Amino acid sequence: MHSPRTLVELLSAKRDGGTLDAADLRRLVASFMDGALADYQMAAFLMAVFFRGLDDAETVALTEAMLHSGRVLDLSRVPGFKVDKHSTGGVGDKISICLAPLVAACGVPVPMVSGRGLGHTGGTLDKLEAIPGFRTDLSAYDFARIVGDVGTCMIGQTQEIAPADKRIYALRDVTATVECIPLIVASILSKKLAEGIDGLVLDVKVGRGAFMKDTERATALATALVRVGTRAGKRVVAVLTDMDTPLGVEVGNASETREALEVLHGRGPADVVECTMVLGAEMLVMGGKAKDAADARALLERAIARGDAVRTMERMVEAQGGDPRVVADPSRLVVASVTVPVVAASGGTVTAVDALAVGLAAVAMGAGRARADAAVDPAVGISVDVKPGARVAAGDVLARVHVRDEAAGKAIAERIRGAYTIDAQAHVSAPATLVRGRIEA
Amino acid sequence: MHSPRTLVELLSAKRDGGTLDAADLRRLVASFMDGALADYQMAAFLMAVFFRGLDDAETVALTEAMLHSGRVLDLSRVPGFKVDKHSTGGVGDKISICLAPLVAACGVPVPMVSGRGLGHTGGTLDKLEAIPGFRTDLSAYDFARIVGDVGTCMIGQTQEIAPADKRIYALRDVTATVECIPLIVASILSKKLAEGIDGLVLDVKVGRGAFMKDTERATALATALVRVGTRAGKRVVAVLTDMDTPLGVEVGNASETREALEVLHGRGPADVVECTMVLGAEMLVMGGKAKDAADARALLERAIARGDAVRTMERMVEAQGGDPRVVADPSRLVVASVTVPVVAASGGTVTAVDALAVGLAAVAMGAGRARADAAVDPAVGISVDVKPGARVAAGDVLARVHVRDEAAGKAIAERIRGAYTIDAQAHVSAPATLVRGRIEA
Repeated sequence: MHSPRTLVELLSAKRDGGTLDAADLRRLVASFMDGALADYQMAAFLMAVFFRGLDDAETVALTEAMLHSGRVLDLSRVPGFKVDKHSTGGVGDKISICLAPLVAACGVPVPMVSGRGLGHTGGTLDKLEAIPGFRTDLSAYDFARIVGDVGTCMIGQTQEIAPADKRIYALRDVTATVECIPLIVASILSKKLAEGIDGLVLDVKVGRGAFMKDTERATALATALVRVGTRAGKRVVAVLTDMDTPLGVEVGNASETREALEVLHGRGPADVVECTMVLGAEMLVMGGKAKDAADARALLERAIARGDAVRTMERMVEAQGGDPRVVADPSRLVVASVTVPVVAASGGTVTAVDALAVGLAAVAMGAGRARADAAVDPAVGISVDVKPGARVAAGDVLARVHVRDEAAGKAIAERIRGAYTIDAQAHVSAPATLVRGRIEA
Repeated sequence: MHSPRTLVELLSAKRDGGTLDAADLRRLVASFMDGALADYQMAAFLMAVFFRGLDDAETVALTEAMLHSGRVLDLSRVPGFKVDKHSTGGVGDKISICLAPLVAACGVPVPMVSGRGLGHTGGTLDKLEAIPGFRTDLSAYDFARIVGDVGTCMIGQTQEIAPADKRIYALRDVTATVECIPLIVASILSKKLAEGIDGLVLDVKVGRGAFMKDTERATALATALVRVGTRAGKRVVAVLTDMDTPLGVEVGNASETREALEVLHGRGPADVVECTMVLGAEMLVMGGKAKDAADARALLERAIARGDAVRTMERMVEAQGGDPRVVADPSRLVVASVTVPVVAASGGTVTAVDALAVGLAAVAMGAGRARADAAVDPAVGISVDVKPGARVAAGDVLARVHVRDEAAGKAIAERIRGAYTIDAQAHVSAPATLVRGRIEA
């Protein structure tokens, strides 16, 4: 018999490249939550993990320890194979807002716990709250009830869901330990597994405006998410999608919700529609409602054509305290009164619209937040009207900035103009392919 | 013009293998001291340094930032080239106590700031405090005055000396970042450079009872200390000495002081005398009082033979409030009333006396401390009478345990017996060579 290792010995073991077992990782997380392991010790552990990594078994164990630091939502009374979608975050990514009601309308329950915007990427909760009255701070009880009644419900991460992830994420943010795949995997999966889901479709963004800038890193993250999620007993598929360019036209809160609602009416920009269809098809096949992607797409299109998707969204908005009339008439959503055009200085072919630059401009104008406790302005935003591949002449309007005052708008318009690359020589530039890869177990 | 990097960006830069400049490191340490850089951020930085290291310029900069977090003692009014000795710590290492007055008696001022015992190694302050009335908590003013008057003074690290080192060391101790050469170098040198010295002789211990268990690691540490200390503008020499076996016979507080005082009288165990002579010769040559080691040894021997060393020690003890009569008559020092012999179970040649095991037994009996805030008992200790190389018969007394009660003594004696390796076959076993190497700039 040997005495258990001290917490510092566990740190040393990981530092020296050793492997921790599930009991060790449970002890680390539990000790962190009860104060026996101090913040500075967890910070040192996270940095050791940054260098030494975690193998799949360790990542599963860390995920489960974080998951069980809080409450796991019980959706056992909701019949059906419950599937959620998670995006690693991008600029103009409003897909959750149209995807959840659309998939639910096709018979697959979608319990969705979303986040707020931080840094250059927006957050689904901020966008949804542009709907007057819409509440995202529901109890676990109401969440389960609405998923059961409507087929979908979209709330925020409560204090009860994976509190260890919340504390660890806050620590990573200030200790240079964010960019670490096993820690990212454990953070994403611990929250998602707490939702009581059976399957998860991941939208791993790749490009300038994404957390993962290149396909290699994005593939590594997607692969790790699929492997670890599968090992934790869930069906998991990951799709890699482009985030060099903002997704869709609108970047903002009310404006992105408006654009997502358009999709439910059979309208909306082609890339937003395509992204919704690709992810929705994965969810329907995973949920057992379609035998393949083609079959699933037909179901999704029918749910839009018949109005089922709109009706599901109306019921969800109503159940969550929002004004359901915005679903039928998205133009009811607020928009800032001043519009400043972004004008092309020269002619040519648009070869790039830098998603990161657009995202940072959105933060600067109040549509996003640089600090977690800041408020967002739902009315302001950017319409990225002209996308890569388009031919423009000098003086053409490339984009529009929606602001509350002209002076601020002009400064933002200048930044957005800088986000455009216009090549006078290039005559043809194919738009980026939306889907860059797909990974399954 | 570019804006300075944020503190988190500095952590990222080191994490990614970048080099920080002196201003960056000063900012990190200053921010840590004023609270802008939290404990958990420093912990993450230290772990990043564990993996990425610091180059010499960075180590010098970190050392100087830590040094200047507090007060640098001003000994400019003390004439002469001031030299101190620092040991990386071992079991039975009482050398400072005889070395400082001996070297001072030969005309080289020795300002010495020492530490307390922690873990299996003892501390000079604990040993000195076995002298009735002896005070180690003097003011910087009194310290400088006594060094000037007597030639040497031995105090503890005050709150004013390198407070950043104190806080960083406490953090390293609980975040598995102790075993990192550049951090060890910065910690040692920041404290020593705060003493106002011109030169430093390092005794880097190597072996079972040392922090560095093998010659390779000890050499790496010694080399880094010499390189960085030289770059910081000091004369620095390092000697590597054996710490597989306890140094001398006595392990304890009063008993080690007694043994060190014996050296000043021209007595004492051969290894203690030799270690004192080797280090003392380095200090005299460095201090310009001798042209080479042979010359220096002659001076040291003469200072002992003439009684100068004893007189210097008497003056120092008196100046620091202690009873100077213990210097002439070391048997005045306290000793525990109960002695339990450690008896050989079988005959043969002693091939090893495990210094680590002896050090841990000393902690267990109250001579050392497992926690920084524990008290030590000056009277208890172990006499390691029989050393490697000796032939013994079953029933011979190997060592003696000095305790306050018999039962505790028997348990300790059993541990000490376990520290001995007696080989029935071996007929000759050379005692370990004390000096294992020497490194200079």
